Amino acid sequence: MMRTRPLKVALLGCGVVGSEVARIMTTQAADLAARIGAPVELAGVAVRRPDRVREGIAPELVTTDATALVKRGDLDVVVEVIGGIEPARTLITTAFAHGASVVSANKALLAQDGAALHAAAEEHGKDLYYEAAVAGAIPLIRPLRESLAGDKVNRVLGIVNGTTNFILDKMDSTGAGYQEALDEATALGYAEADPTADVEGFDAAAKAAILAGIAFHTRVRLDDVHREGMTEVTAADFASAREMGCTIKLLAICERAADGGSVTARVHPAMIPLIHPLASVRGAYNAVFVESDAAGQLMFYGPGAGGAPTASAVLGDLVAVCRNRLSQTTGPGESAYAALPVSPMGEVVTRYHISLDVADKPGVLAQVATVFAERGVSIDTVRQQGKDGEASLVVVTHRASDAALDGTVDALRKLDTVRGVASIMRVEGE
Amino acid sequence: MMRTRPLKVALLGCGVVGSEVARIMTTQAADLAARIGAPVELAGVAVRRPDRVREGIAPELVTTDATALVKRGDLDVVVEVIGGIEPARTLITTAFAHGASVVSANKALLAQDGAALHAAAEEHGKDLYYEAAVAGAIPLIRPLRESLAGDKVNRVLGIVNGTTNFILDKMDSTGAGYQEALDEATALGYAEADPTADVEGFDAAAKAAILAGIAFHTRVRLDDVHREGMTEVTAADFASAREMGCTIKLLAICERAADGGSVTARVHPAMIPLIHPLASVRGAYNAVFVESDAAGQLMFYGPGAGGAPTASAVLGDLVAVCRNRLSQTTGPGESAYAALPVSPMGEVVTRYHISLDVADKPGVLAQVATVFAERGVSIDTVRQQGKDGEASLVVVTHRASDAALDGTVDALRKLDTVRGVASIMRVEGE
Repeated sequence: MMRTRPLKVALLGCGVVGSEVARIMTTQAADLAARIGAPVELAGVAVRRPDRVREGIAPELVTTDATALVKRGDLDVVVEVIGGIEPARTLITTAFAHGASVVSANKALLAQDGAALHAAAEEHGKDLYYEAAVAGAIPLIRPLRESLAGDKVNRVLGIVNGTTNFILDKMDSTGAGYQEALDEATALGYAEADPTADVEGFDAAAKAAILAGIAFHTRVRLDDVHREGMTEVTAADFASAREMGCTIKLLAICERAADGGSVTARVHPAMIPLIHPLASVRGAYNAVFVESDAAGQLMFYGPGAGGAPTASAVLGDLVAVCRNRLSQTTGPGESAYAALPVSPMGEVVTRYHISLDVADKPGVLAQVATVFAERGVSIDTVRQQGKDGEASLVVVTHRASDAALDGTVDALRKLDTVRGVASIMRVEGE
Repeated sequence: MMRTRPLKVALLGCGVVGSEVARIMTTQAADLAARIGAPVELAGVAVRRPDRVREGIAPELVTTDATALVKRGDLDVVVEVIGGIEPARTLITTAFAHGASVVSANKALLAQDGAALHAAAEEHGKDLYYEAAVAGAIPLIRPLRESLAGDKVNRVLGIVNGTTNFILDKMDSTGAGYQEALDEATALGYAEADPTADVEGFDAAAKAAILAGIAFHTRVRLDDVHREGMTEVTAADFASAREMGCTIKLLAICERAADGGSVTARVHPAMIPLIHPLASVRGAYNAVFVESDAAGQLMFYGPGAGGAPTASAVLGDLVAVCRNRLSQTTGPGESAYAALPVSPMGEVVTRYHISLDVADKPGVLAQVATVFAERGVSIDTVRQQGKDGEASLVVVTHRASDAALDGTVDALRKLDTVRGVASIMRVEGE
């Protein structure tokens, strides 16, 4: 049942991802048409620099006026791969108002304004799909939203930023320091000239907000996500991790509280056991664990970024949205009915690995242990190493709240015998 | 926008999976209603033994007359978790004819009669969903059908049978023989009293047929799948594998030929490198690699069987089908437009590990090597071990067709100096 009128698709942005989307739309046109039930036609491409040659894209399709493009009124789908907040946000809402559905890869925008964009889509009876916004080619949003729609997700735990995973993997495997590993990532094109969004965890936090929102049927905004970057992870931290049979990963963790009444979302470096499947995720790959009541533990693994992988996710959404257009329906929109409160970081419960520089004299361990006990933080193991009148004390705790741990560390700092807190790192995945 | 009339769901079968589906429909009723947009109601449960007590299911819902149940005419969805060909097939087509959509977990039926069932669903404008038929809780059919709908899948390679993976994992980790490992699997409930469907690869072959069909948009029937069981894998094979840095897994492999013009599907034990992610899939877990043009390598991992995990997949489909009912549409049906020919096993190209018992005298290696060369099978490595006038010769080939390898082995058997072919195993995942 093939329609003759093609579905018209406009592309906003024609960089690494956009050019791959355009290429696949052209080279795989027959397959896409068969899978959708109608041909798809590239109706326009909005770019900033129109003079750049774009292989395979007819010059007359290229425009610098993105606003006029999304206002044309004859578009079926607008694919937004510009990134950033503006003008992407205004272009998307304008597209809805002028009759198009939208496929976006824009994690920052979705994490900040997902609710408003979903509301705009619903107001106009249009689709908003964004599988490519989280973990590139890895199907994650559709499985969470659809495959697990009859299950209760309790935790999402994953490596969702390839740049930082590349850096941490390099530090782990070569013993390099952070700066050295970052320099290599930059030289190889895995890190941008300004790596802040990646290494400070902003990128992963945006993805955590999106994943938590879908997993828990609750609005979770970027501001709700506790965020710590990985710029202070040292070679010494990796040595400590290895002594515990662990490595260090930058993790995005979205959890339902044990009582089910609230959720948390956070991004920070953490120790994770070497036997955990996430520990062996190498280079710039991404992997996400999902734990739910009925399904148990699922893992999704693949390339988390790059032009072609991201385009694969965009095109999967494009096919779905086009099918919806043909059957005059829309897919599942925002599901935020649970409206659970998002708890602050202080309520997160996990284990901690703490390195203290202490005076090497009798009674120090007793003092330190008392501080932990007074705040209800139970110690799992403690290891003391002396060296020239100074000593280091490595404490690994049982599960405790972040607030209790913070209080403990503050009190430790006040002890005469504690010269400094060398590092504090959470231990996850056990 | 909550409808008041509930969607009516009938359950065919109330065993390990069905009872979990019923339990979750009851305990998670409010969440399911919120996600679907209308409440769902268990309208009837067809069972063989009505006298068995079923906690949480009202006795008046239970019937032994499955045919009358699916003919009621007021059902929205029929969930089929009986398994087997009949009466499941007739009940499903009867359900379509009487106005219901169908969610099934029936791999054997889908692999044998998927095309006819899809045709019946389409004829009546109904949905046929079956995520639970392959790899239990792991989202695989939806990602292949929808997330990768804009990509070109070239290979699906996976562990899709938990029973055999448990047995092989046990053999690998303890050095146990096949029978000993099978006995333990049976004692622990991982293997059925008659393990034939699992250990002879029938179960995995059905899943391979379903996966290949969806991945390549081509009808692939159970009969098209080359199938070898794993009952002849020995402790010696594991020792050989380990010498190569490999382990042995029962793999389902669906491939597009290099020229793109045909596909193959097969199930057999194979050596796989220890560094390959599939090598570390333990116990009864399943994991599937998907390789596509744009996305690259994706992996999906999780529990491949069990009541609750399978119910999770069934309920995800149930939510999707109910949403479709409410918006008076249907999801993507069968996609077999590519209609690629399914090539016989002889055209499969892979590497081989061959153990020969040979006479320990000069010239044997030259003879053997000549046989390989004459049939165009290139040797990668060869290792000779002498013992008391006899010797074993282990040959690992480069990639060659199965037909060429078969011819080579036939010719080797005819050599005076070859006393026997101890084992032949394919090497995958490199």
